Amino acid sequence: MTDVATTPLTEPTGAVVPSSVPTHWYNLAADLPQPCPPALHPGTREPLGPDDLAPLFPMALILQEVSTERWIEIPQTVREIYALWRPSPLIRAHRLERALGTSAKIFYKYEGVSPAGSHKPNTAVAQAYYNAIEGTTKLTTETGAGQWGASLSFACSLLGLDCEVWQVRASFDAKPYRRFQMETYGGVCHPSPSDLTESGRAMLAADPETTGSLGMAISEAVEVAAGDPKAHYALGSVLNHVLLHQSVIGTEALAQLDEIGETADVVFGCAGGGSNLAGLSFPFIGRNLTANGTTQVVACEPAACPSLTQGEYRYDHGDVAGLTPLLKMHTLGSDFVPPPIHAGGLRYHGMAPMVSHALELGLLEAIAVEQDDAFRAGVEFARAEGMIPAPESTHAVAGAMARARAATTDETILIGLSGNGVLDLPSYSDYV
Amino acid sequence: MTDVATTPLTEPTGAVVPSSVPTHWYNLAADLPQPCPPALHPGTREPLGPDDLAPLFPMALILQEVSTERWIEIPQTVREIYALWRPSPLIRAHRLERALGTSAKIFYKYEGVSPAGSHKPNTAVAQAYYNAIEGTTKLTTETGAGQWGASLSFACSLLGLDCEVWQVRASFDAKPYRRFQMETYGGVCHPSPSDLTESGRAMLAADPETTGSLGMAISEAVEVAAGDPKAHYALGSVLNHVLLHQSVIGTEALAQLDEIGETADVVFGCAGGGSNLAGLSFPFIGRNLTANGTTQVVACEPAACPSLTQGEYRYDHGDVAGLTPLLKMHTLGSDFVPPPIHAGGLRYHGMAPMVSHALELGLLEAIAVEQDDAFRAGVEFARAEGMIPAPESTHAVAGAMARARAATTDETILIGLSGNGVLDLPSYSDYV
Repeated sequence: MTDVATTPLTEPTGAVVPSSVPTHWYNLAADLPQPCPPALHPGTREPLGPDDLAPLFPMALILQEVSTERWIEIPQTVREIYALWRPSPLIRAHRLERALGTSAKIFYKYEGVSPAGSHKPNTAVAQAYYNAIEGTTKLTTETGAGQWGASLSFACSLLGLDCEVWQVRASFDAKPYRRFQMETYGGVCHPSPSDLTESGRAMLAADPETTGSLGMAISEAVEVAAGDPKAHYALGSVLNHVLLHQSVIGTEALAQLDEIGETADVVFGCAGGGSNLAGLSFPFIGRNLTANGTTQVVACEPAACPSLTQGEYRYDHGDVAGLTPLLKMHTLGSDFVPPPIHAGGLRYHGMAPMVSHALELGLLEAIAVEQDDAFRAGVEFARAEGMIPAPESTHAVAGAMARARAATTDETILIGLSGNGVLDLPSYSDYV
Repeated sequence: MTDVATTPLTEPTGAVVPSSVPTHWYNLAADLPQPCPPALHPGTREPLGPDDLAPLFPMALILQEVSTERWIEIPQTVREIYALWRPSPLIRAHRLERALGTSAKIFYKYEGVSPAGSHKPNTAVAQAYYNAIEGTTKLTTETGAGQWGASLSFACSLLGLDCEVWQVRASFDAKPYRRFQMETYGGVCHPSPSDLTESGRAMLAADPETTGSLGMAISEAVEVAAGDPKAHYALGSVLNHVLLHQSVIGTEALAQLDEIGETADVVFGCAGGGSNLAGLSFPFIGRNLTANGTTQVVACEPAACPSLTQGEYRYDHGDVAGLTPLLKMHTLGSDFVPPPIHAGGLRYHGMAPMVSHALELGLLEAIAVEQDDAFRAGVEFARAEGMIPAPESTHAVAGAMARARAATTDETILIGLSGNGVLDLPSYSDYV
């Protein structure tokens, strides 16, 4: 009989993990023709060292953040938890193809089967794991629509950590189900800005009616983590180590396509902070760079928050209060407050530095999608295929459907379906 | 290029369906030591003939209802749609085992990955298919918590049928997300009782404040289908053909356990109308009857609606108005209005005749679970395994966890996780 009291939750259980669950994360930094510009210290504007990040992150993640190793081994405990829903399905959208009357072949990689309903647990589990083995007892974070907060709460629950989440008030008020999900996993969720932090109180003083932003919520979560030696901070997107963990999506998709003798001509992924887009596409870009792959990558962002297509490429803060490092990225300005669009997970002022860098290098391209076009595509997808895409994912669906409608060959289109829209049904209802 | 206008949605698309998706449904009627008592005409009390059911159901389903063939072939179009989420995962609950400190091995068969989030699409797709090929243009139905209405709306969308749903008012008011889900798929949803039908108006006249019941909603849906020559009625549980379609759950679970060299010593399934319990357990009971299997089957029902453990075994109507055939079943009386418990899908006064018959024959046993115990088990399961079980499923989880806690051997326990609880998070929140 297992001794409940003494077996750490970070230890593998001995579960059999299928070989189709990746053993390594893929790191695009190893294959970039030019290195990504480094993060800078917010005070000195010098490149950050590991010590600068130590108050916020465990050393394993700090090393991943700056690693240029191509393949980084996935700990067995993380693989065991991944195996609860991974490999995620790769599905040919035959019925959508028929509805569109397209000559193209459409596939979708579906992350909505995870316990939290999106791709976010891929990094949440990894981050909770490395924190737990280094002795962290609590993680703090921000969340927009709530996918990330729910995912981190899930991961913390399985790995024995406390979890405290600041959720953008617009979503906190409009979408209580995600908070219920966090609480079911034992997490604690506050609306942001809150009066629990200095940054929050300052933001409330400046605008008591603010609906919040991810940038504000990040400031609050970072402040609490920095002030508590047993607590660390976890970010759901943007940073290199987050993109690294998400590479399981694209690694699996490549293998699944290979297995049926298909090659993706074009990949459509939605882009907010960039983790889903990167996780899906970087393994394809890696193949383009190292093995003569020819897959086109299209980032689909909301027209209401168009960092990649409209933002400046420059150093900027990740948060409002200026507590985070300076990151070289496409940004709308760290004080940009996006309109409260339905795709809350895409409401971020900046873009992951490595995605921004890849855009500058011409390794991917970007389009902006209007919200109504995104929902129209989401409804059409749901009625043909059954899966209701998350509002974030509908941006990729819209991009892919436009491409498929215009197709004159049997080209192969891959859609990243980053999550399901079950907890976003009120948004669908508004649209329908 | 596919011709959108002329290819019926009932035609296979040519999708490759994995061999692990069952090719046949299993029919326990072939192996029963005594036949199940027949349904009786509500007027004459004589056994029903096919003609009696023709106003409500297509002939293919009527024949399945009375079939004693052991294996019935699954149409290729239905298998293609099943393959969007089937085979559903069979997962060993290693982390739950560790949390419980049990010597038992616990597996769960997880139906929550379906587009509608529960096992209901297994029969919804089949029913929509047979209706569509026989020329039906609209299906009507009732729903409790909404899993069934959402599942039928999904199936009708993929197969080109209109769908009209009467939802028990208690759930219609408390859980609008399921209605949004139906509407996203193009379905129409009314609260029941409604003023759209004679039965509904009569029930409202008798009690304007009624919170409704599945029995009332059935009366309304049946009335509308019977009065429209192009419309048919679809039931989400109770009837033999529904149980038949759900047999894919148990057929897959048997194969998945066989593949890893395991045998279930005991199976726990939740029971409301009986379709999930039957779908999960009948293939195991079939093996017990024909191949010396020794799997114990435990039906877990809510203590607030205890048809199997407290009901009388007698002929009764399936609905309130007495429009449906008389079915020999364990019943609390067709006018029983259960309290508005969270597990809305289990709020039915009767039990599937074939499940009732199997109980009488000693092929399965039944226990009643209190709601608080069920939620406590659901939260513990979610925090260990990540998946949040549907409130219905938590009854099976509670039964299985009690068994595991008491286990002194390495017996193998299988839980039927009939759905996810994502749209039931307010109920979890109330509990937490």
